[in-house]
Amino acid sequence: MQNFYRQACDELICALHEVLGNPLSPMSLHEPEFAGNEWTYVKECIDTGWVSSVGKFVDGFERQLVQATGARHAVAVANGTAALHMALLLAGVDRGDEVLVPAMSFVGTANSVAHAGAVPHFVDSESGTLGMDPRALRAHLDQVAQKTTGGLLNRLTGRRIAAIVPMHAFGHPVDLEGLLEVAANFGLPVVEDAAESLGSTYKGQHTGTFGLLGILSFNGNKVITTGGGGAILTNDEALARRAKHLTTTAKRPHRWAFVHDEVAYNYRMPNINAALGCAQLERLPDFLSRKRHLAQRYRKVFSESNIFDFVDQPGGCESNFWLVAIRLRQPNAELRDLLLAAVNDAGYQCRPVWTLLNKLPMYLDCPRAALPVAQAIEDSLINLPSSPKLAQSPQ
Amino acid sequence: MQNFYRQACDELICALHEVLGNPLSPMSLHEPEFAGNEWTYVKECIDTGWVSSVGKFVDGFERQLVQATGARHAVAVANGTAALHMALLLAGVDRGDEVLVPAMSFVGTANSVAHAGAVPHFVDSESGTLGMDPRALRAHLDQVAQKTTGGLLNRLTGRRIAAIVPMHAFGHPVDLEGLLEVAANFGLPVVEDAAESLGSTYKGQHTGTFGLLGILSFNGNKVITTGGGGAILTNDEALARRAKHLTTTAKRPHRWAFVHDEVAYNYRMPNINAALGCAQLERLPDFLSRKRHLAQRYRKVFSESNIFDFVDQPGGCESNFWLVAIRLRQPNAELRDLLLAAVNDAGYQCRPVWTLLNKLPMYLDCPRAALPVAQAIEDSLINLPSSPKLAQSPQ
Repeated sequence: MQNFYRQACDELICALHEVLGNPLSPMSLHEPEFAGNEWTYVKECIDTGWVSSVGKFVDGFERQLVQATGARHAVAVANGTAALHMALLLAGVDRGDEVLVPAMSFVGTANSVAHAGAVPHFVDSESGTLGMDPRALRAHLDQVAQKTTGGLLNRLTGRRIAAIVPMHAFGHPVDLEGLLEVAANFGLPVVEDAAESLGSTYKGQHTGTFGLLGILSFNGNKVITTGGGGAILTNDEALARRAKHLTTTAKRPHRWAFVHDEVAYNYRMPNINAALGCAQLERLPDFLSRKRHLAQRYRKVFSESNIFDFVDQPGGCESNFWLVAIRLRQPNAELRDLLLAAVNDAGYQCRPVWTLLNKLPMYLDCPRAALPVAQAIEDSLINLPSSPKLAQSPQ
Repeated sequence: MQNFYRQACDELICALHEVLGNPLSPMSLHEPEFAGNEWTYVKECIDTGWVSSVGKFVDGFERQLVQATGARHAVAVANGTAALHMALLLAGVDRGDEVLVPAMSFVGTANSVAHAGAVPHFVDSESGTLGMDPRALRAHLDQVAQKTTGGLLNRLTGRRIAAIVPMHAFGHPVDLEGLLEVAANFGLPVVEDAAESLGSTYKGQHTGTFGLLGILSFNGNKVITTGGGGAILTNDEALARRAKHLTTTAKRPHRWAFVHDEVAYNYRMPNINAALGCAQLERLPDFLSRKRHLAQRYRKVFSESNIFDFVDQPGGCESNFWLVAIRLRQPNAELRDLLLAAVNDAGYQCRPVWTLLNKLPMYLDCPRAALPVAQAIEDSLINLPSSPKLAQSPQ
């Protein structure tokens, strides 16, 4: 172990040095870049006084998102967790239902399910995409689920299974065709958690636009940022209208009267954050180009390694490579932590994948499938610095 | 009616004209003003790349809020509804509980209760403060509530009554001493909805700092704005720490690992919004001075009216006069609507109070006290343009 650790550590630090150079100050995992119209648009908000609930940048940002993703409708909201909470309600998830989510995801995926009053039901990933595995999902549902007139029942818990939420981890698209087929077979709506995959496509179509609804995140560490923000994507006009209504306190339009017609949320994105988003989206093609170029350099430097595998985009997909990932060929959580300590000490901010959600104290008792692949990913994966500024656009 | 309407309409439009002048373009109810360090601070966020979850402006804004309110702790969050949702959870409100809220409030007050899984229980206002009436509340609780070992029970619904949420309407402080006494007698925590009362004091102490917790809002129409934002106030250090934890996904601090220890929320305020807040808070004394000066001019112009009463700050209180209000001496919802149509047509943006919450479709079945005063307020109150820019600082 000691010798192998030394070898792995040397190899990893050499690779980081080759791709990124010597860090003069700690090199972040992912930093935003504001070199476009950010200040112009934000200044316009401040100068006109339109910083808050309504304003042209919210509408403009939603239009730009429609253009960038090909979704018919986009509704800007406060953040990705809020977006997923709303998308689940809009997909018909009710209090006491179960929602199928990957065990390997950010905690926001499961929290959104809990916020909707439902219970996350954790399923396994596949090694190739890192995301939900359609074959494992089908086998699991064949075992635990039963079709009834009231919907798909979990025979072990007696609860209704109400939706499937695949998540495109680190920007790599899941096997959407496989998952859509399983969803159709079992009569379940798909809500895509595309929080990390703005700019990623599956067979040429943007992630987040395959399910009944999809969601994006514009947190500070994402490909583009609005400070804090998210969006709901859908091709269904009625759902889009309800998404806007439900995220803006369900107020009926009136010149002065305050009538709200359902329990709703203040999940809107302020105009000043949308202004940032408009400028950032203009830069998306450049960010993607540089991030893919950076990924290519990482790919190359790890291509001959016997210790690490570069996590590449699945076939037929274009990933945004939000966070570049490598995996220990032999999963080993202790070695992973030793390596993380070493590279972080050397000034390269690297991180493991999230603790599997089924192991967090509040989700320990939730239903789950066998999770051998997710566990192997957790024990082997390391994310590397991935900011667009770390690479120039390819010539 | 026709003649009386004419007389009331003429009087109201003359008064508005005298205080505000002729509107060249529609005169808003409440507009933010950015004439301080807003640019400088927001630009610093963009230039440094710190727009998102952490950053010095979030910490700075919280420190400034502590100074401005005298609360021991302030936690900045996404908006007032999120702040109240969290404050209710922190005060121990559980799913299925009831929470006493004024029927006369913004829908966010009741929605926060619903988001916590609890049921709003509507109580009456008093004419002098517009806010929750301690005498009516005590009489109502004497009638419906029963102290048990499990807490205070609503005998009619069997549910536990878990908290009291007074709201300082339009900036006018409620009768806090009266309400705190009722709360103590019935063993209930007080959570102050001070969304509208930043800068308002009761016997020299800032509103929002009397209860176990209080909340503020910095929506675009408030005295100061962060685009969208809110804060939780408390003097209890443990509650403040839990408020920060619960609003930032309950992540345990670690150099790289992702361990979250409870179902939590992404309710944080982004740094770019906090930057706006820091600059706005610096201007608060000037905004308050001008708003009080504007209120004084409205007070004077309505002092001789036989039709309208100026809604003044309660004795012993300093109101921020967030929205100046007048009331028809004889409540009359039809006349109120005719007047609203006329003044809005004349270019003065005026509005009625919110539809009483117990009348909204989703809250029709909620428990409630008799609400004669709230009803009279709804049928008589009109808010008038109240932006600080409508008055100069007094010489």
